[in-house]
Amino acid sequence: MPPAGGTVQALLEEVTVTMTGAEAAATEGHEAAALLERTRSTVNPQLRTGVESLPESMRRIAMYHFGWEQADGTPAAGQAGKAIRPALVLAATQALGGDPRRAVRAAAAVELAHNFTLLHDDVIDEDPTRRNRPTAWKVFGVPDAIVAGDAMCALALRLLAEDPHPAAASASARLAACVIELCAGQQADCAFERRGPREVSLEECLAMAEAKTGALLGCACALGALYAADEEEVAAMDAFGREAGLAFQLIDDLIGIWGDPSHTGKPAGADLVAHKKSLPVVAALASDTEAAAELAALYAGPLDGDAVRRAADAVDRAGGRDWAQSQAADRMGRAVHHLSRAVPDLAAAGDLLALAEFVTRRTR
Amino acid sequence: MPPAGGTVQALLEEVTVTMTGAEAAATEGHEAAALLERTRSTVNPQLRTGVESLPESMRRIAMYHFGWEQADGTPAAGQAGKAIRPALVLAATQALGGDPRRAVRAAAAVELAHNFTLLHDDVIDEDPTRRNRPTAWKVFGVPDAIVAGDAMCALALRLLAEDPHPAAASASARLAACVIELCAGQQADCAFERRGPREVSLEECLAMAEAKTGALLGCACALGALYAADEEEVAAMDAFGREAGLAFQLIDDLIGIWGDPSHTGKPAGADLVAHKKSLPVVAALASDTEAAAELAALYAGPLDGDAVRRAADAVDRAGGRDWAQSQAADRMGRAVHHLSRAVPDLAAAGDLLALAEFVTRRTR
Repeated sequence: MPPAGGTVQALLEEVTVTMTGAEAAATEGHEAAALLERTRSTVNPQLRTGVESLPESMRRIAMYHFGWEQADGTPAAGQAGKAIRPALVLAATQALGGDPRRAVRAAAAVELAHNFTLLHDDVIDEDPTRRNRPTAWKVFGVPDAIVAGDAMCALALRLLAEDPHPAAASASARLAACVIELCAGQQADCAFERRGPREVSLEECLAMAEAKTGALLGCACALGALYAADEEEVAAMDAFGREAGLAFQLIDDLIGIWGDPSHTGKPAGADLVAHKKSLPVVAALASDTEAAAELAALYAGPLDGDAVRRAADAVDRAGGRDWAQSQAADRMGRAVHHLSRAVPDLAAAGDLLALAEFVTRRTR
Repeated sequence: MPPAGGTVQALLEEVTVTMTGAEAAATEGHEAAALLERTRSTVNPQLRTGVESLPESMRRIAMYHFGWEQADGTPAAGQAGKAIRPALVLAATQALGGDPRRAVRAAAAVELAHNFTLLHDDVIDEDPTRRNRPTAWKVFGVPDAIVAGDAMCALALRLLAEDPHPAAASASARLAACVIELCAGQQADCAFERRGPREVSLEECLAMAEAKTGALLGCACALGALYAADEEEVAAMDAFGREAGLAFQLIDDLIGIWGDPSHTGKPAGADLVAHKKSLPVVAALASDTEAAAELAALYAGPLDGDAVRRAADAVDRAGGRDWAQSQAADRMGRAVHHLSRAVPDLAAAGDLLALAEFVTRRTR
């Protein structure tokens, strides 16, 4: 149930008011960066122990994917991902008064599930690079990348099944259900690629983004809550993560069109060049405007140079940019509303708010 | 620890002695066939409820794979597999004095895990048909078959995570560990294909067969035991299923060379035509005989017509056929030995023995 505008406004103001001193640093991303660093040092040993327990043939692919080894098995000090999802798990446990140390296994499980989807998505999307290195399937071949992904998914659920914490069974059921939702999201994403740009509705596009991005952020928050609280708070935390995930996706899509190449590391309008049916594009196409017709015509042909600039301009004039920006703000408002249901004193949820801010501004 | 020959002999005689009247029918496969039929009618509703809970895009692929729907979504009354693994779960629970009705969810989970591996193996091996129909990837494409397999794996583990039975967490951990082992087995199978026929040792080949075939039969028996008994019986049941699984694989490999085409539905010597490094072939190649050298030379070229007959003859003369037959008998002996550790009065394990007999003679 979306809150009335006034309520969201009040909540956002409350957040702003409580953000003084150290908390204000969160808005710059420093606090979140430190939090992510702490999360990695807490969760990585568990994650690595799990990966090292895999049979050799799966282990080497997982070690490579996480950036801990080169393709030839020599050690690498690579970046194993930002650890946003495990950080959400631990922050949610903490915000609800639980002991985050008992949720480390759940945090590792969520990160494994996330990385299993990356391995399979790279195979399916035929993506050649990830984290500035060749993807696992490029190095080890498609068959090995598929089975290594399968093994990582099973490992995630094995970690939870072996967790003696009383919440582990619920956590396991939630993570398994989330994996199914992630699969449905990935399937929808692929199916949309095969359809014309005006054959995908905005509603379908939002549902896909929720399944593909929102579900696992929601699951991370819900698992953290499970290790500290009751079913009601768990549902509210899930909703917080889902809405923040959608806000993240909307911002990411805006960056995909208007992001500064010097910050994103991608060419200007990369998502347009790739004819991606991102949320601002679909919103623009759904508008009954001349600009929508122009955009549809541009999407029917190759997009480069001047055509990219004209397409970006058409998305803007058709209202896609404004819509995505206000949707992102609305989703963040809803996220904070859900969070306040789980943690009435939002000052206790500083880490979660810092992480939500971080993901929605990370590559701007 | 393999039992001494005398002990196995005594156990096998004991089994023969206890098989009078109705039990003797098991040797003809009638009892096993009836048991499998009963298993399908008990487990399929749970299995189908699980599959129907999947998001639509995953559900239709799973429904097709199980033979319950045509590709266009219309109902089909197809064969959803023989249900050997779920039958082992229920029979193991029963043999140990448990209530098999409480293990139905575990039985469905094992069958889902098995079918997830079939979906992915078909993609990886590029197999065009399964159960006399086009494989899922042929009908729905590789990306959808991959994600549907992922979803079925997660569903298997979700069913156990949601099971209120106190053994469910252990069952879930065992099934997840088994999925990892199955992945390693599939990976090894693919890796062997890329190596020369004399570059795969018999030991590696047996380890691969145990991971790819034995592990899930062992897991099925272990899960059944978990729903009725203590850790010690669980380990013995796992060992029973693993050894029976290896016996099954050895017999299957013999059939792949010498099976009667009118029974197998495949051309004579199908595994030789495909240059498969099956256990009798690898055993023959490992022998220091003239026939081994002949076989290696034949495997270096295309195998058809007369060459297939000569290769089969070379496997036989190099001792591969005798070795596989005596290994299969030895494995069944070990299987019965392990079973007798879990169920000292083997008369109570009639269903398990009937199933083990069934899988080792099913397509002869």
